[in-house]
Order: sequence, then C-alpha cells, then structure tokens
Amino acid sequence: MASTEGGDFNPYRRAPQPLLVVISGPSGVGKDATINRMRELGYPFHFVVTATTRPRRPGEVHGQDYFFVSTDEFTAMIEQGELLEYAVVYGEYKGIPRAHVREALSSGQVVIMRLDVQGAATVRELVPDAVLIFLMAASEEELARRLRARRTESPARLEKRLATARQEMAQMANFDYVVVNRDHHLDDTVHQIEAIIMAERCRVKQRHIEL
Amino acid sequence: MASTEGGDFNPYRRAPQPLLVVISGPSGVGKDATINRMRELGYPFHFVVTATTRPRRPGEVHGQDYFFVSTDEFTAMIEQGELLEYAVVYGEYKGIPRAHVREALSSGQVVIMRLDVQGAATVRELVPDAVLIFLMAASEEELARRLRARRTESPARLEKRLATARQEMAQMANFDYVVVNRDHHLDDTVHQIEAIIMAERCRVKQRHIEL
Repeated sequence: MASTEGGDFNPYRRAPQPLLVVISGPSGVGKDATINRMRELGYPFHFVVTATTRPRRPGEVHGQDYFFVSTDEFTAMIEQGELLEYAVVYGEYKGIPRAHVREALSSGQVVIMRLDVQGAATVRELVPDAVLIFLMAASEEELARRLRARRTESPARLEKRLATARQEMAQMANFDYVVVNRDHHLDDTVHQIEAIIMAERCRVKQRHIEL
Repeated sequence: MASTEGGDFNPYRRAPQPLLVVISGPSGVGKDATINRMRELGYPFHFVVTATTRPRRPGEVHGQDYFFVSTDEFTAMIEQGELLEYAVVYGEYKGIPRAHVREALSSGQVVIMRLDVQGAATVRELVPDAVLIFLMAASEEELARRLRARRTESPARLEKRLATARQEMAQMANFDYVVVNRDHHLDDTVHQIEAIIMAERCRVKQRHIEL
C-alpha cells in the first residue's frame, strides 16, 4: 500500500490555500448587516476593516466596523502607498489598508473585505483570483425602502444612490456569485455566503492570492 | 424608478437554471452512503438511478438504489441507445438511462448522478457544464478498511480496487470539487456537497446543461 507519509506528491494531503472574499453590491443592499450577522454567528473569518472619512453611523465602532479617519489622515495613507485600493464614494474616501490584508491572509483564515462595486472591480484587477460576491436586493423597491429607513439620506441623495445602483447592477457579470439579500431573510443571505466559502474551499483548482 | 415588471432585461429576475451534479470517486469511498444520507435528511434533489448487472447488496432496493438488470437486458439498452454512458466496472455493467436524466432536468430540481471515475470523465465530455464532485477518503488506509468491511471482496479483488483507486486519484484534476469523506463524518460530507450545490446556484455565470 502506498504510504501516506511519503515525501512524494500525495493526493491525500491538500493544503488549504488562502481565500480572499469580497462582499460588494449597491449602497443600501445590506453589506454591513450581512457581515455583522456573520460575526454574531461566530463564523471564523478575518474581516478587513475599511478606512473611511465618512461620518460614523449610530452603533458603529472604530476599528471594528471602519477606521474613521480625517481627510488629512486619509490623504497621508494614499501618499504613503498604504492602501490596496481607495475611491471617493458619494464624496467620502474609502480605502483598504494593504498591510491588514497581507496580515490576514498570512493567518490562513478566510479573509473578507466589504467593498463598493467600484472597489470590487479594482480588486478583481489587482487580485484576479479573489472571490467576488455581489449582494443585491430582491427588488429596487426594497432597496429604496432600506435607504429611506436609514434617515441619513436627503431625497436628492437617495435618488442618486438608486441611479448608481441601477448602473452597478449591470456590473454583476464581473462577479463570481450573486446573493439576493431579501428583507427579513438575513440568515439566508449569510447561509449562502458561508456555502460559497465552503464550496470554494472544496475547489480542485485552487485560487492563487497575491498582493 | 425603474419598474421591476417591465418586459426588458431585468437584473432582479434571474431564472434558476438546471444543475447536473455528478458524485464520483474510487470504489469504497462512500458515494452510496453519502447519497442515502442526503435522501434521509430530505435534501431536495432528483437522483438518477444507475442500471447495473452487479448483484444486489443487502438492503439495496431495486429502482431506488439501482436498477438491477440481467446482462441481456443491459445489452438491449446499449443497442437501443438508451444509455447516456455505460462502462464495465470490475466485470459488471453500469450505465445511466438517458431518458431519466432528461426527465429529471426538466423538473427543474437539482439532478444528482452517482458515477465511477471513468463514467464521470465521460459525462464531462458529454455535458461540459456538469458539476463534478470527487469524493475521496481521508487516507488509503481508511479506504482499505471500508472495502474490507464490506466482506464482499476477496483479497485479490481488494488489492485491485486499491490499485485502481490510486490511478483514479490522479484524475481528480478533471473534477470541479473534491470532498473528503472521513470515517464517522458523513454529515460533514453531506454538508459540503449541499454547500457546493447552493454556491453553484449563486454563480453569476450559469451553467448550460444539454443532453
């Protein structure tokens, strides 16, 4: 019988490879709620915290939900090349600190990043083997209702977000997976994302993540 | 706001497409146990029953586990072109009735077929977009132990199956996914297969199944 301890290639020994998962989708689709629920349920993953200049929303924790920084601090990070990607979204800066992603990947855990659709497209170019998940609402009506419920959006701003969402929906084709985040079905959304991660870990052709 | 009822392309309406899943792997790896457990747990799928000339094992039900047919009946099915694929495995015929697969796919359910590694390779050629899952044991020792536990194998036959398994492991690269079916962890195996199916249903680029 062939030894399973030999030094030669052994198909019984498959080393798990790092997995970089991007959760994206239009504004208001529920990216934050989804990631928070995954955390609550104790799903093991490393979440890469985005740096942003946007104001903190009630309940958000610095260093856990976002790094809330000033525009000056953000500009300094850009100049020092510390960001994997960054963008101006609705007049506010958002960016991913490169060092955090590297550290997270080296831990061997699944690394999850939350990105707007524009940021996801950038990551697709930088890291072609990242797993890109597009989160969408069940309908534009649900999306509008959620944005209104935030009460942080002026009518003009809301209309702009909906118009952007329509454009972003057309970019779905550049993603690997699409998950519908239905009202009152957050756990189904989380379950589908977990299934995608589990399936990706079973892929024969493993992904190569280099930053 | 864009209507979600319009006749134009609507990204909020994605029709689920048929999914053809092949569960394969070396003899003794647990293909039958896995599919039986999925059935017990009530997972919704349509199982395509294989026709075979091999003797019925204790507990196996005709028409549910296999169609147990004579060599004459099998030869007639080959001659009438009724089989999607067939092969001689360890001196016995095994084949998939084409009509069953077509019927199952038209039901819209996930269609699952159990095939030996040779049969899976044939299906890959016939239906390139089928989802191929390679089931493997955690080690060759576990595989040998399971084959011995069947008590239907002579020592020579057992050694032949293990030699074949070694060759079949090398064909894993032609599969989409690999799932390790560990002793006493059948539910983990089932959970991973269900995750793969759920993830495949979330794929943006949908698979095209034609027979």
